[in-house]
Amino acid sequence: MTKYVGKNIPRLDGYDKATGRGLYTTDIYLPHMLHAAVLRSPYAHAKVISVDVSEAEKMEGVVAIATKDNTPRTYFNATASMFLTNLPDKPVLDQQIFSDVVRYIGDEVAAVAAETEAIAKEALKKIKVVYEELPAVYNVDDAMKDGAPQVQPDFSPGNNVCGGVVKIRYGDAEANWDKGEVFAETKVYMQRIKQAQLETHGAVADYNPKGHLKVYSTTQTPYPAKMILATIFDMPASNVHVKNPPYVGGGFGVRIGLSAKAEAIASALSILAKRPVKYIYSRSEDFLTSDSRHEGYIVSKISAMKDGTFVALDTRAYMNTGAYATLGVELAGVTGANGTSGAYRFPNIHYDGYVIYTNQETAGAFRGFGAPQGAFALETCVDQLAKQLGRDPLDLRLQNALRDGDEWWFPYPITSCKLMDCLKEAAKSIGWDEKRGKKQTGTIRRGVGIGCGTHVSNGAPFCLDYNAAFMRIEVDGSLLVSSAVPEIGPGSTTGLLQIAADAVGVPMENARFAFGDTDVAPFDVGSHASRTLYSAGYLLVRLAVDLREQIFEWAGKFLDVDPSTLDLVDGQIVSKCDAAEPHIEPTPLSYLAHQAHLRAKQFVVSGCKAPTNSPPFHAHAAEVEVDMETGMIKVLKLAAAHDVGVAVNPILVEGQIESGLIMGLGYALREEMTYQEGKGFYNDSYHKYMLPTMDETPEMESIIVEGFDPDGPFGVKGVGECGMIPTAPAIVGAVEDAIGIRFYEIPLTPGRVLKKIKEVYGD
Amino acid sequence: MTKYVGKNIPRLDGYDKATGRGLYTTDIYLPHMLHAAVLRSPYAHAKVISVDVSEAEKMEGVVAIATKDNTPRTYFNATASMFLTNLPDKPVLDQQIFSDVVRYIGDEVAAVAAETEAIAKEALKKIKVVYEELPAVYNVDDAMKDGAPQVQPDFSPGNNVCGGVVKIRYGDAEANWDKGEVFAETKVYMQRIKQAQLETHGAVADYNPKGHLKVYSTTQTPYPAKMILATIFDMPASNVHVKNPPYVGGGFGVRIGLSAKAEAIASALSILAKRPVKYIYSRSEDFLTSDSRHEGYIVSKISAMKDGTFVALDTRAYMNTGAYATLGVELAGVTGANGTSGAYRFPNIHYDGYVIYTNQETAGAFRGFGAPQGAFALETCVDQLAKQLGRDPLDLRLQNALRDGDEWWFPYPITSCKLMDCLKEAAKSIGWDEKRGKKQTGTIRRGVGIGCGTHVSNGAPFCLDYNAAFMRIEVDGSLLVSSAVPEIGPGSTTGLLQIAADAVGVPMENARFAFGDTDVAPFDVGSHASRTLYSAGYLLVRLAVDLREQIFEWAGKFLDVDPSTLDLVDGQIVSKCDAAEPHIEPTPLSYLAHQAHLRAKQFVVSGCKAPTNSPPFHAHAAEVEVDMETGMIKVLKLAAAHDVGVAVNPILVEGQIESGLIMGLGYALREEMTYQEGKGFYNDSYHKYMLPTMDETPEMESIIVEGFDPDGPFGVKGVGECGMIPTAPAIVGAVEDAIGIRFYEIPLTPGRVLKKIKEVYGD
Repeated sequence: MTKYVGKNIPRLDGYDKATGRGLYTTDIYLPHMLHAAVLRSPYAHAKVISVDVSEAEKMEGVVAIATKDNTPRTYFNATASMFLTNLPDKPVLDQQIFSDVVRYIGDEVAAVAAETEAIAKEALKKIKVVYEELPAVYNVDDAMKDGAPQVQPDFSPGNNVCGGVVKIRYGDAEANWDKGEVFAETKVYMQRIKQAQLETHGAVADYNPKGHLKVYSTTQTPYPAKMILATIFDMPASNVHVKNPPYVGGGFGVRIGLSAKAEAIASALSILAKRPVKYIYSRSEDFLTSDSRHEGYIVSKISAMKDGTFVALDTRAYMNTGAYATLGVELAGVTGANGTSGAYRFPNIHYDGYVIYTNQETAGAFRGFGAPQGAFALETCVDQLAKQLGRDPLDLRLQNALRDGDEWWFPYPITSCKLMDCLKEAAKSIGWDEKRGKKQTGTIRRGVGIGCGTHVSNGAPFCLDYNAAFMRIEVDGSLLVSSAVPEIGPGSTTGLLQIAADAVGVPMENARFAFGDTDVAPFDVGSHASRTLYSAGYLLVRLAVDLREQIFEWAGKFLDVDPSTLDLVDGQIVSKCDAAEPHIEPTPLSYLAHQAHLRAKQFVVSGCKAPTNSPPFHAHAAEVEVDMETGMIKVLKLAAAHDVGVAVNPILVEGQIESGLIMGLGYALREEMTYQEGKGFYNDSYHKYMLPTMDETPEMESIIVEGFDPDGPFGVKGVGECGMIPTAPAIVGAVEDAIGIRFYEIPLTPGRVLKKIKEVYGD
Repeated sequence: MTKYVGKNIPRLDGYDKATGRGLYTTDIYLPHMLHAAVLRSPYAHAKVISVDVSEAEKMEGVVAIATKDNTPRTYFNATASMFLTNLPDKPVLDQQIFSDVVRYIGDEVAAVAAETEAIAKEALKKIKVVYEELPAVYNVDDAMKDGAPQVQPDFSPGNNVCGGVVKIRYGDAEANWDKGEVFAETKVYMQRIKQAQLETHGAVADYNPKGHLKVYSTTQTPYPAKMILATIFDMPASNVHVKNPPYVGGGFGVRIGLSAKAEAIASALSILAKRPVKYIYSRSEDFLTSDSRHEGYIVSKISAMKDGTFVALDTRAYMNTGAYATLGVELAGVTGANGTSGAYRFPNIHYDGYVIYTNQETAGAFRGFGAPQGAFALETCVDQLAKQLGRDPLDLRLQNALRDGDEWWFPYPITSCKLMDCLKEAAKSIGWDEKRGKKQTGTIRRGVGIGCGTHVSNGAPFCLDYNAAFMRIEVDGSLLVSSAVPEIGPGSTTGLLQIAADAVGVPMENARFAFGDTDVAPFDVGSHASRTLYSAGYLLVRLAVDLREQIFEWAGKFLDVDPSTLDLVDGQIVSKCDAAEPHIEPTPLSYLAHQAHLRAKQFVVSGCKAPTNSPPFHAHAAEVEVDMETGMIKVLKLAAAHDVGVAVNPILVEGQIESGLIMGLGYALREEMTYQEGKGFYNDSYHKYMLPTMDETPEMESIIVEGFDPDGPFGVKGVGECGMIPTAPAIVGAVEDAIGIRFYEIPLTPGRVLKKIKEVYGD
């Protein structure tokens, strides 16, 4: 029935990227453009008594210096939380461009715009700042103690809990707890990791005192970025124009809203200088002063019957959100929602999520958005329960897995669920039956593990989700779709054009998608929460209905036939198959559109829709090899089975899954931001941060367990984040299968593993 | 009733332009961008036998060379005529990027894209072209002779008449001619002049083989430019994106459609090079190879009663359109329509317009679009008739002037007409009664003259006219209007925002107009034919109705009141004055829009409308001083009274009128493109072309005779071109009043005037 949906259409941005001709923010050049550098706090917590820029201002080539004394003091939240949060007491607006207090090592103190970046950096050295150091707190437990230093006294009075405790209640876990016969309990620790996206944060801001503010940006959400900037600078939102250039070198959650403070700082300087200002984060700035994944710990308890049936789940999560809220609060919701309860039939759920301020770099959104932490906690506890029950972990999961038509705590129904198939397919691919539970000896020991989960197809209910867009037929019958969604890498604009072309009924070659620009289209959330294809696609199929109706109405008059008998197929106006005879001669839309043009008519529609939120499901299985002498873990294979509804572009879906698998492998085994109290993070570059490389990349099998979601456009569900959710649990489970040791803390670095091996097996 | 319409709101582009920060095409820089230079024909007419680029290609830094051998041979018309003409046998598609025949000195033969402009120019010298010279023809009379060389044998077989004779018939001039009692006949000659706009033509084209063609352009009609490029390069129109950068340094008709061939050549080179290419015309190229105003002659005959009542008009116009049609054919229509009959009650009209191909530079659209030529012809003939009747020329005009409710030949009704007031006001301002007909003696002699006319508020019926646009309310209640109209100088985007803000009911400070970009908005004709404010405004007020309806519907539910009782005034939702009590508390749109956003709703509308075409009217009076010894003419004062309906922004209307007056003065007295057979035009720069300067600028009084046009948005009519239409007639009439000599040829250069003085008065 579809010509493009379901096909491996080569991604439209591929040529630009493969040839290096595609533009990114750093490529933007504007006449008279200045370059920025930022002065950052050397203290984890201090009052900024004074900032003296007099010497710096005198430097040749310095044009403007922004400090807390000459920039807006408006409180904001640099993430889309500011305009999208759906949690009751939010958004938490705890940031300023520059503030009277610095709250982590790297916090912004001043910024210089100069004719060259070198001059700007030199000028930073001449800015004299007087600080008054304050007591600092670095971890969750210390921060929750009575009398702990207060990181954000105005926003978490008396404690350091950011945004209040996030609670999820379903059924009655307390009342029903004791109905269970077996009780498992685990406490897991997760490290902080960094998105390490290829392109660092950046912005080129061009402020016109009489007109507007135009900002080229690395944001993954152009529209929310526009709204945040309008708020900070007290401008009408219509006067702020945010655009991707058009490409963004990855996002993974690190720039939902602003790109750290790149847009705000570049804009503040442009306002002062009345000239365009480019500010591109160095790799080090990007590592040390933009959001990362939350570190923390989660205590999970499962109450179950002896036959394995789950009775209740009790989860408490404690996440170190660092100095500012950003998306921490919403994330705690998702940790509780999708990570700790999602994929199983739990009739009773109790979840409390604590997001704790500390004087570390801010933690925020990161692919999976809390779900990888939650999944690690829950899947560890499920494995524990299986062990207590003497059950095969796969079998226990199959017993309790959600299925079609189930009720659950999430406010959107399970419209389609192929979790059982995912579990079976992943297990089959990894060779579960042959390999699991085989006692290993010798230096190199192998094992297999499994994990499963669910996620979302957009940010609802924690975040607002809807889209507006435009669609038009050009004078030659070609289709132009305008939506403010960005293209941050997954190829979603290709997939959306496949959807639009099929929905309208025109050849994809005669269609284009204008994206990533708040002037070309009305409100769109942007790219986050695995939403883009699902949510934007949801609107496009509905706009296509309106557009077709407009075409048929005009064509009916022009061709003198009943509009309701008309269809548009592959760019031809034809009679519907079931229309009464005689059928019309096929009329090319190109001809019709030109005739309409000659009669002063263009087919053009606009609209705005909120989608529902269909849950995707997935199961990952891992096979690993552990070296008992070195503690080195080698992942031999990852098998990932995903229920994504219909895969619009299977090869792009596989790309999403595989990239998630590698990120999940890094999370499980290698990546870790190491905080050194009083000195900040050790890891400030790719050199000092152990990303997985091709050497660590295992055999991967991505299995698309295709279904059809009745709420998704053409049956689609989200997929972007899912690849990294149950990866760490599967790997950690496989390690346990190999060497009989369960790890409750990631990453499983050789040091940590070897230490444990020695504890268990002796030297 | 209006808050902004009618007010002198400072133009929004003023800051950018006054400070030099506004971007024009030449300011656009793209990474890896190449620079272009063009090889042009040294012959007025020749076959291009071969173009050998082998030596040029070898040069270091040369990346691509475009010739007739490697570029599309699609025939096109580089002007908007290609998609907008409404004349039956059109458009005339007689251009190619590079062709087998060159038809004027300067015609394009090849283009080079190189790392620098200097390399590109050097490479031109190494291209070897073999020409076979053909017989050429340079003027209208020669071109119409039997056996004349054929300039475009495929498009005017057997003669050189481009696009066929343009005929206007109204009543029956032939049958009623003899009912007149007095007959006047004049033949006037008009020179070729150049728009000499500040910014030369230019384009930066960026072609992506997998995606689309993006072109920054100096066009005054982005959408038609996009459609023309799509045709030339056989691409879907949706894949072509044309944008102004956003500013364009003047248009005056010279770039309706493409900017000469800038966009086509830059695109052809970008396609070959797969890199962005910038091509900026030199001033000389702009002068010598882009459209100018038609030279030619017009024979006018009036049949009238002895009491002065007009009986019939017979006009034959012969215009030299040069080598290609561009907008010549449509222009001949307007010459006949508005220039030779427009402002008077002629019950019988016979008009034949001949547009003649020659081997000169192409003539095309130029502010007034044929009307200045026609007005010079008709007003000369009316003055002649007055002389024959012994009547005061003002008096004769008042007797025959069109007035409200009159029927006329134009297919749109006279919806409002204050021509009588214009004539009286202009005469009063110049001191007609005291100064006219006073016998002058001595060396310096003074006189006054008058002329009047009408024009259009858009290109209909000769050209198609309609608009499509988008409008949305942002989450903070601010308004964003998206229309593809450009801002080429008149301040029309400021005026349109005034209209939109009043029509929607929001503060103008909270509104912005996104313009000049085919991605931000659907089809719009662009800026020509005095249409922008009238035609785009026409749509905006209607879109505002839809937008308000959408807002009221949502607000009604949200506030629990009947939507039909609501009004939106200055950004506040209020009860209509006449709504039943109780009235609601005023609710800020900012609050409502945010509440709507939180419920997944943005107010967004799109639409498409064709306006009618309300004629503006005007009268100009001039006072001049003639030096009998030198032949020098000094214009002391120009008084211009204009019926523009409502002046949305009076100071901008005055700017339009005054700039038209100065252009008209240049036309009457100074400007002339001088063709040297076999060598081309002498005038290739501002240095060699006698534009009026501040020295020649007289006292000017712009009188806005304000009315209210029922069809115009907020009562508006067109004004952009009118200032230059009856200026030359008024000046030439004033010269006759001063020295008793009627001139039938412009410009009245000192040499031409002195020669005539000597003929009449002796040495």
